[in-house]
Amino acid sequence: MPGSSWYLTVALGLASLVDPAAGRLHTDLRRPSPKQNHDSRRDLYRGLGQKLNDRDLVHERSLSEAGSCLESNFTEIHAPKKNIWTGLTDPEAASVLSWLFKQADLNLTIAKDAGDWDNTIELVELMQPNKTNSLHFIDHGGKAPPRYAHVVIDHRASVDPYYADILVGPLPIVNGKTKWEPLEYPYTRKTQGKIRNVEADSTLMYDTWLLGISTSIADITLDLWNGTALGLDNDTIGLWGIDPLSQENGRILRWDQFWHNPTDEFDSSTLLPLGLYVHSDVTGRDASKWKVLGWLYNNIFYPTTEAFRNAFYSPGFDKLGANIDGTWAHTDQRGKVLPHDRSYPPVSVAPSGSRFGVDVEQKYVEWMDFSFYISFSHDVGMTLHDIRYKGQRILYELGLQEALAHYAGNDPVQSMTSYLDTYYGFGPYAFELAKGYDCPSYATYLNSTFYQEETTHTHIHSICLFEYDADYPMQRHSSNTYVSITKNVYFTVRSVSTVGNYDYMFSYSFYMDGSVGVEVRASGYIQSAYYAHNEEFGYHIHDALSGSMHDHVLNFKADFDILGLNNTIQLTNQFPTTQTFAWSNKTRNTMKIKHSNIESEDESRFNWAANAATQVKVLNLDKTTPYGEHRGYRISPSTGSIHLTVENSTNLRNAAQWANYDVQITQHHDTEPRSAHAKNSQDVENPPINFDEFFNGENLTQQDLVVWLNLGMHHVPHTGDLPNTVFTTAHSGVQFMPLNYLLGDPSRETVNMVRVDYKDGNVSAVHTFGQHDDQCTLDFEPAESDLWDYVGDVVVRKFPYDPNDPYYETDSIS
Amino acid sequence: MPGSSWYLTVALGLASLVDPAAGRLHTDLRRPSPKQNHDSRRDLYRGLGQKLNDRDLVHERSLSEAGSCLESNFTEIHAPKKNIWTGLTDPEAASVLSWLFKQADLNLTIAKDAGDWDNTIELVELMQPNKTNSLHFIDHGGKAPPRYAHVVIDHRASVDPYYADILVGPLPIVNGKTKWEPLEYPYTRKTQGKIRNVEADSTLMYDTWLLGISTSIADITLDLWNGTALGLDNDTIGLWGIDPLSQENGRILRWDQFWHNPTDEFDSSTLLPLGLYVHSDVTGRDASKWKVLGWLYNNIFYPTTEAFRNAFYSPGFDKLGANIDGTWAHTDQRGKVLPHDRSYPPVSVAPSGSRFGVDVEQKYVEWMDFSFYISFSHDVGMTLHDIRYKGQRILYELGLQEALAHYAGNDPVQSMTSYLDTYYGFGPYAFELAKGYDCPSYATYLNSTFYQEETTHTHIHSICLFEYDADYPMQRHSSNTYVSITKNVYFTVRSVSTVGNYDYMFSYSFYMDGSVGVEVRASGYIQSAYYAHNEEFGYHIHDALSGSMHDHVLNFKADFDILGLNNTIQLTNQFPTTQTFAWSNKTRNTMKIKHSNIESEDESRFNWAANAATQVKVLNLDKTTPYGEHRGYRISPSTGSIHLTVENSTNLRNAAQWANYDVQITQHHDTEPRSAHAKNSQDVENPPINFDEFFNGENLTQQDLVVWLNLGMHHVPHTGDLPNTVFTTAHSGVQFMPLNYLLGDPSRETVNMVRVDYKDGNVSAVHTFGQHDDQCTLDFEPAESDLWDYVGDVVVRKFPYDPNDPYYETDSIS
Repeated sequence: MPGSSWYLTVALGLASLVDPAAGRLHTDLRRPSPKQNHDSRRDLYRGLGQKLNDRDLVHERSLSEAGSCLESNFTEIHAPKKNIWTGLTDPEAASVLSWLFKQADLNLTIAKDAGDWDNTIELVELMQPNKTNSLHFIDHGGKAPPRYAHVVIDHRASVDPYYADILVGPLPIVNGKTKWEPLEYPYTRKTQGKIRNVEADSTLMYDTWLLGISTSIADITLDLWNGTALGLDNDTIGLWGIDPLSQENGRILRWDQFWHNPTDEFDSSTLLPLGLYVHSDVTGRDASKWKVLGWLYNNIFYPTTEAFRNAFYSPGFDKLGANIDGTWAHTDQRGKVLPHDRSYPPVSVAPSGSRFGVDVEQKYVEWMDFSFYISFSHDVGMTLHDIRYKGQRILYELGLQEALAHYAGNDPVQSMTSYLDTYYGFGPYAFELAKGYDCPSYATYLNSTFYQEETTHTHIHSICLFEYDADYPMQRHSSNTYVSITKNVYFTVRSVSTVGNYDYMFSYSFYMDGSVGVEVRASGYIQSAYYAHNEEFGYHIHDALSGSMHDHVLNFKADFDILGLNNTIQLTNQFPTTQTFAWSNKTRNTMKIKHSNIESEDESRFNWAANAATQVKVLNLDKTTPYGEHRGYRISPSTGSIHLTVENSTNLRNAAQWANYDVQITQHHDTEPRSAHAKNSQDVENPPINFDEFFNGENLTQQDLVVWLNLGMHHVPHTGDLPNTVFTTAHSGVQFMPLNYLLGDPSRETVNMVRVDYKDGNVSAVHTFGQHDDQCTLDFEPAESDLWDYVGDVVVRKFPYDPNDPYYETDSIS
Repeated sequence: MPGSSWYLTVALGLASLVDPAAGRLHTDLRRPSPKQNHDSRRDLYRGLGQKLNDRDLVHERSLSEAGSCLESNFTEIHAPKKNIWTGLTDPEAASVLSWLFKQADLNLTIAKDAGDWDNTIELVELMQPNKTNSLHFIDHGGKAPPRYAHVVIDHRASVDPYYADILVGPLPIVNGKTKWEPLEYPYTRKTQGKIRNVEADSTLMYDTWLLGISTSIADITLDLWNGTALGLDNDTIGLWGIDPLSQENGRILRWDQFWHNPTDEFDSSTLLPLGLYVHSDVTGRDASKWKVLGWLYNNIFYPTTEAFRNAFYSPGFDKLGANIDGTWAHTDQRGKVLPHDRSYPPVSVAPSGSRFGVDVEQKYVEWMDFSFYISFSHDVGMTLHDIRYKGQRILYELGLQEALAHYAGNDPVQSMTSYLDTYYGFGPYAFELAKGYDCPSYATYLNSTFYQEETTHTHIHSICLFEYDADYPMQRHSSNTYVSITKNVYFTVRSVSTVGNYDYMFSYSFYMDGSVGVEVRASGYIQSAYYAHNEEFGYHIHDALSGSMHDHVLNFKADFDILGLNNTIQLTNQFPTTQTFAWSNKTRNTMKIKHSNIESEDESRFNWAANAATQVKVLNLDKTTPYGEHRGYRISPSTGSIHLTVENSTNLRNAAQWANYDVQITQHHDTEPRSAHAKNSQDVENPPINFDEFFNGENLTQQDLVVWLNLGMHHVPHTGDLPNTVFTTAHSGVQFMPLNYLLGDPSRETVNMVRVDYKDGNVSAVHTFGQHDDQCTLDFEPAESDLWDYVGDVVVRKFPYDPNDPYYETDSIS
C-alpha cells in the first residue's frame, strides 16, 4: 500500500470504532490561524516530493519593514463531549454540603467550630464515574454517567475514630430522594468504607503531648541548642517525626526528633535535624494513658526521660553538634556571578501564540492529532482522560496513583518514615506555576480546585499547556545531494505539587511521531538525617548532616485502549543464539527475537529486563497492519525508573504493594480504579486498598487491561542536593510509542520540516512545505513582571455558600 | 562551613593543582556584555537572602517604546593554551604530503592517478599527542608536545596489500631530518602498524566482479524486477552486501544482495532489498580465481548459478514480490496538514546572542564555569579535550571511539553485517548542520576538516555550540510564603555524522549544576531486510520488507581526572536488609548502602545494575570534603544504554570486544589511546586493536583511569521507522554528575532565578537577582532563508598545494 493516502486509509479503516461525536475533532477549530491566507501560494505546492524551487517564496524584505509577529492565545474550542471526570461545580459542592449538614445520622460539625471529638467533612469531590458507565456515554452515545459526590467524613465523635468514605447522590441534590451510602466497591478491604484514624487527636498530639515532652526537657534543649519548644512564637526548635505512625500489636507508636526551626524565610527545616529522638505510645484517645517509651541520643537508647536526664547530667556525656540554618540552606543566588550570566539567556518564544485548542470549562485539549480531557482531584492531582490519537482512544486514563518516599537510616525517624503522599494530597499542594520558570511564559494556564473545610480553593494557573521545540530534530537524513530535517515540536501538560519538603513536577508530553511521554522530576528540600553512626545510610553532607537515603517510587495508572478495549501485553525478547542457516552449514553466533504474550495476572508483575532486552507492548491481537503485524503501543522507560529497594517493608506492610515491580498489569475492573487509597497509611497491615489483591489469576488475553507503572529514583543525597535537589538529575520517565500502529512515521505530516537540495556548494532548492516563514518583530518580555500577578489560592466558601466573596489563602505542609 | 564563601574556598583550596595559565580562564572575556551597566543598580542588591522589594526595579515602559534586543555573537577569547589536539594546519598537511611523495621507499602515487596496484595516501592528520606529553604542556608549563602527522598508506602494490599506519615528523618538516616510522605503539597487535586490506581491489570488485555476476543473470533480474544491473546510468537495481567481509580459514568471502535503486532524489535504497543473494569467494588479488559459491532465494540455497537458473526456469518456481520505491520511502511532508501547523511553532531565541566565549582558531570554548578544547578526526569526528569545571580538569578526553551496528537475520546479508563505522569515518561524513533544524539558528557554528585524496575538505558549520533553556527548571520550591525557581539553561556542543544510511547526532551538554551529558541519537534510513522466512528477526513493515533487527553500540572514552590524575572507581550498592537497631529489639526490613572500590582490571568490566541499584562513581580518595566524603563525579545512564546482545559474534570475532559490557575501566596508558582501530574490520580474528587485551589485571586504586562507556539501542524497526527512524525514540545517553564534589549545588550561582514572596493573594516582592529584564523587540526570522547558504564541503587541494582555489564537493557513502 505505497503512496500518500495511507494516513487517510488508516483513519477511515478505523472509523467504525470512533464515536460519532469524535468526528468533530479538529473540525471545531473555529478560529482560523490569522496568517493562513498568506500561505495560499505555498499551499499549491504542498505535497509529495515536489521539485519546486522555493527561492522565490522566501520573503526578501528587510527586517526594518517587517511587521510584528501576530501572537494569539489558544483557540477556544468546544469539547465533543462533556468532561465527566472534572470536579463538582461550585453549586453542586455547596448543595452537597448543605444536604450533608442536614443529615442527623452523620452528626457533622462545621470544621472551624469542630474539636477533636466532633465529626467533620474532610473531602467533597466528584466521584469518578466507572469506566463501564463512561464508555456508554463517550463511545456509545448513551447518557452521561450519574454524578455522585465522594465525601470523606472524619468521624471523631467516638472512642474509635475513623474516616468514612461515602457517596452522596445522584446529583443534583433532591431533598428526600438523595441518599448517602458507604463507599466500598473500589476498595479491596470490605469494611463499609470505614478506615481507622490513628491521628484523630492532632491538636492534643501537637499542642499538648509533644509540646509537653519538649517542655519537660527544656533544660536539656537549652543546654544543647540554646533553644526550647514551648509552643511560643519565638520557639527555635520543633519536635516532629515518623509517618506512618508505627502500628504493631495494636499499639500506635511515635518516634519524633527535635529539629531547628528555620531562622529566615526559607523552608529549610528538613535540613536542620538535631539528633535527639523520643519514642511514645499514643494508642487510643485517652491521653492520660499515652506514655514516653524512651529516648535515643548518639545511638544510645534511654528507656525513660529520667534515665536520659541522668545520663545527660553525668560526667562524660557526649554532646553532639547541631545543624544551624544559614545561606547554605537557602536557595537565593549567591557566589560570584558567572561570565555573561546577566545577559538574556536563550528562551523559547511563541511567535504565533498557542497552536492548540482548549475548552477551558470542560478542560478539554486538542493539539495536532491528539486530544484529551483533564481532571484534578485531592489525592492525585491531575489526571488525563480519553487520550485520543488520530481520533482513536489510546488511553482511557493516565495519571498518578500514589507517591512513596521510603527512607532508611540508623535512627528511628529516618528508618520508620515512608511517606505515602496522597494522604496529604497532590491536589491541595499544586500551587500556581511561575510563568517563564515552571513553564514557558507563553503557556496557557488553567486553574484547579480542591475542597478544604467547607470551601473550594482554586489554585490559579496550576496546570500549564505549552508547545516546545526540542533542542534536537525529530528526523534527519543527509546525502550528497540533499538534507531532510524535521523539527521536533512537542506539546506538554504539566502540574507541580509541593508536598511538604519536595516539589514534584509532572509532565505529560505528546510528540509528532505519535508517542506520549510521562515524566516526573523532584526538587525542593531533602529530608535529611542527623549525622551519627549512619555511614551505611547516606553521605555526610554538612556539619552534622546526613543525606538520608530514600527511594521515591511513584505509581501511575495507564489504562490503555488500543483500537478498542480488548488488548494483550506482548513481550518481545531479544537474545543471543547459536544456529545454522540454509546458506551456512556452520553454526553462527548471532541473535534473534521471541514474542510471548502475558496470559494472566499470575505472570503480570515484572521488572524492566536487563540490557533493555525485552520490549513491552500493548497490542490489539484483532487489529493488524496489512502486513500481519499486531497494531499497538510500546512502553519503555525513557529517563530511568525504579521499584522499591526495600523488600517486605516493616513500615509499609501491605500499604504499598504496588511499589515492588516496575510494570504490573491487571484486567480492568470498575472495582479496581486505583492502586492505593489515600488513607492506606492509617492501617498498613490491612489497608483499604491492598494492591496485591488485584492479582488473582485473571485472564489477560484480549481483555481490557490496565498497566500500572512505577517511576522514581533512588536518592542518596550528596552535597549537590544542598540547598535543593535539582530536577536535572532527579528525574524518571516512561514513553509510550506507536509500534506497528500506523503504516509509517506520522511526523511526515508536519510542515515544520525542510529539504535542502545542493550540489558542489550551491543550493538549488529549499523546500519549506508551506511553513510560515515571514520575518517579523516580536515583543520580547522577560517573565518577571508577570510574577507580580502571582496570587496563591482563591478560596470560595461553600458552607455557608458565599460565591461572591472569594478570598486568597495559600496553605502548605509545615 | 556555612556561609556564602564556600565556592571561593573550594576554588582556592584547589589552586595548587591548577596550571598558572588556567588563571586566565574567565578573565579573558574581553568583550563586556553590552547591557551589563544597565544592571549596576541591581548589582548593589545582589547577594544572600535580601528582602529587597524589587517592584521599583521592574521597567514599566511600554513595548512601543522598547528598544531592540541587542543581539551579539559569541565573545572572542584567547585560549589559555594552544590546542594541541586540533588538526594539522593546511601548510603542515601540504608539507607532509610533499615530503611523502619524495620518499622513494614508500613508492606513492597520487590518488587520482592510482590504480588498484598503486600505493596511495589514505589519510594525513595530526597524531594525537600522548597524554603524558600533553600534561607536561597543559599542567606543568612544559613545551608543547612534538607534532607528528599520522599517515595511513594504502599499500596495494603487492600481492598482499595492506594498510600501513606510519608517523611522519616531528613537524615542521625539515628535509633530511624528518623521518617516517611505523606506528605500532597504540595498537595491541604488534605488526609494525601493518593491517591487511581485504578490499584492495574495489574497482575490480564492483565494476567487474559484482557487475559480472549481475550481468550473468540479467535475464532473471529482468523477469523478477524488470530491471538489470549492467553498469549503465539507467540501471534500476544494484548488488551490494556484507561488511565486514567474511574471513574464515584464510578465505575472504562475500554475500551480496540485489537492491532496487531509488527512483527519486531520496536516499531510500536500504529500504529496497530484493531477496536474491549471491555468495562468492574473492580471496586474493587474482580475480580469475574468484568464484561464485552459490545463490540464495526464498531461503533455498543453490550451489551454482546454473543450479539457480535451472530452478528459476523450472515449473513451480516461487517468484516473490519486490520492494518498490515510493512516497512511503520519502521523507517529504505528506498527508493532511494538521490544525495550526502552518502557524509559527515555538522556537528558542537568544535575545542577547551567545553568552559564551570561543577561540575559533584554537577551537577553545568557555561557558560559565566550564571550558574545553575541540578536535576533529577522520575516524571518530569530534572529541573534547581538557574539560574543566571551575578551573579544574574533570575530563582529559571525552569522545566517540567506535560505532557498531550489528544486524541479525535469516538471510546471509543481514546475518553477516556488523558495520564498524569508523572504517568509513565520522569525520568525513559530519556534514554541514542545518540552522534552525539541527541546532538553533542562533547557534555558533564551527568548521571541521578532514583529509581525502591529497585535499583537505572543510565541512562548513559542522559543529554547533548553543545555549538552550530546558522546558523545565533546574530547581524549585514552594512554601506558603514564597516560591523559589531557577531556570535550567544549559550549553551544548553538537555534531552530526551521516554514515551511509544512518544519521548519528552527538551532543555533549553542560549544566549549571556541574553535570555533563553525553547523548547520541539515530535517525536516517534503516537498513532493512527482504521479508521471507525471517519472522524471528524483525517485524514485517512493508510489502516485502522486514525491519531487520540490529544493535547500535557506540563506545565512548571518558578519561576522567578528578582533582588530579589519581582516581578510584567506587560502586555504591543500595540493597534490602533485615536488621536490628539500638532503639528496636525487633528486626526491621529496610535498606542500606555499601561502598566498594574496583581494585583492578580483573573486576572492571560490568553492566548497569538491575533496578539502578548501584552508583558508579569516579572519586579521588585523596580529596575529601570537610565532612570526610571523597570528592568525585557519578556516572549514570540518563536516557538508556545497552551493550551488544550477540555473544561471541561470528561476524566480529575480536574486532569489537568493547561492545560486551556497559562500563569498562582501565588504567590509562599512552599505548592504549583508543578502544578500536578503524581497520579492525580487515582482520576480525586478529585485529590491530583487541580491546580485551587492555585488561591485564592492573591496579585501579588511585590510578589515572579511563572509563569506556557504551551507549546505544536495540533496534527492531517497525512501521514507525518508515521512511526514517526518529530521534525521539532512538536515543541513548549518560550523565556525569558531581557527587560530593563541591559543598553545595553550584547552580545557586546563576542569576537566572526568581523568588516571589506572597501572602493571601498579594505579592510582596519579586527577587530577580540582577537578571537582565528590560522589555525589548526581537527580530524574528525563521531559519529557512539561512539555508540558502548551505554549501557542503569546501575542498582545498594539498598536493599539488593549491590553497587559493578552494572548491565545493560533498561526498556520502552510497
